[in-house]
Amino acid sequence: MDLLTIIKERRSCRSYLSDPVSDADIETMISAAINAPSPLDSQPWSFVVVTQNETKEKIYAEALRCRNFLLEKSGWKWLGKYDLEFLKSVPAMIAVVGDPKKSGADVFMEGGPGAWREACAAAVQNMLLAAQTLGLSTLWFTMFDKGIIKGMLGIEAIPLAIVMVGKAAAPVAATPRKGLGDVMRYIR
Amino acid sequence: MDLLTIIKERRSCRSYLSDPVSDADIETMISAAINAPSPLDSQPWSFVVVTQNETKEKIYAEALRCRNFLLEKSGWKWLGKYDLEFLKSVPAMIAVVGDPKKSGADVFMEGGPGAWREACAAAVQNMLLAAQTLGLSTLWFTMFDKGIIKGMLGIEAIPLAIVMVGKAAAPVAATPRKGLGDVMRYIR
Repeated sequence: MDLLTIIKERRSCRSYLSDPVSDADIETMISAAINAPSPLDSQPWSFVVVTQNETKEKIYAEALRCRNFLLEKSGWKWLGKYDLEFLKSVPAMIAVVGDPKKSGADVFMEGGPGAWREACAAAVQNMLLAAQTLGLSTLWFTMFDKGIIKGMLGIEAIPLAIVMVGKAAAPVAATPRKGLGDVMRYIR
Repeated sequence: MDLLTIIKERRSCRSYLSDPVSDADIETMISAAINAPSPLDSQPWSFVVVTQNETKEKIYAEALRCRNFLLEKSGWKWLGKYDLEFLKSVPAMIAVVGDPKKSGADVFMEGGPGAWREACAAAVQNMLLAAQTLGLSTLWFTMFDKGIIKGMLGIEAIPLAIVMVGKAAAPVAATPRKGLGDVMRYIR
């Protein structure tokens, strides 16, 4: 399949079948991730793959707590209806863990290190695309407190995202995009 | 070409032929970018494509200033030898501009908004991969002061990266990667 088609057909999925994801597929996704570029080739990422029900339940509970916290803080009514049940059926979760100590020369710049985080995001995007080519659906999930997940997974660095992976339970509609003319211009 | 091959063969290029990049190729890259996922589908990105020599010269001058600033701050000797001449021959630069106001519920979380930045990084990765399928080489460049580039390009939001694009002047060697076993584990 053509890359642009892979990119466009990849959509955020919030409803999964419980069919397991094979280790081979998980490892293809992580191979894609680790071939992302990073500042000074520091490879600031690591990955924790969760398929254990007990840990998935804990992540679900934390997401629920975080959703309620955000609802209270923001007053955004849709958050109250944001259904997190898919965290119970999704067969695999891949926590993407970033190490701020593995950034580039940006550590010396105003605003502090950020390149490690951007590299991890590029790695996530590679994972999502790899899953799409494998017929798997994904969600880039961040509704959790990083400190709480850190303790839960027993990691030293920072869990930036938990990528949900599995077969979609239903087709996912495309989200509308701005036109190219609205987001770009030339200086020439 | 297989996605994993595209991902693995894409390498950071620091030496370009001056052959121009077509508008069609630039726009394919930006189409790939804008189909990245973003928090609440906020699409926090915009793009400024620079092919004008005068502006490229200014970006080169800023990169040089930034390199010397970083050399002084860090004491990293390699920075003194880091050759920036490729900024003069690269035919196109695409500034990726991110808007922190277009983040997600993370604005209410500790550490403040970060998801806009991660979405822009995912958009950059899509651009780099799209370029690879077009036979173009790229570099995710960040050696500049964001405030200075902001003023130079006349933009409101934050220039997170300038993606260099063109035909490679010479083959680029792969960078070594850690093995999968060193970066992942299962909880099951």
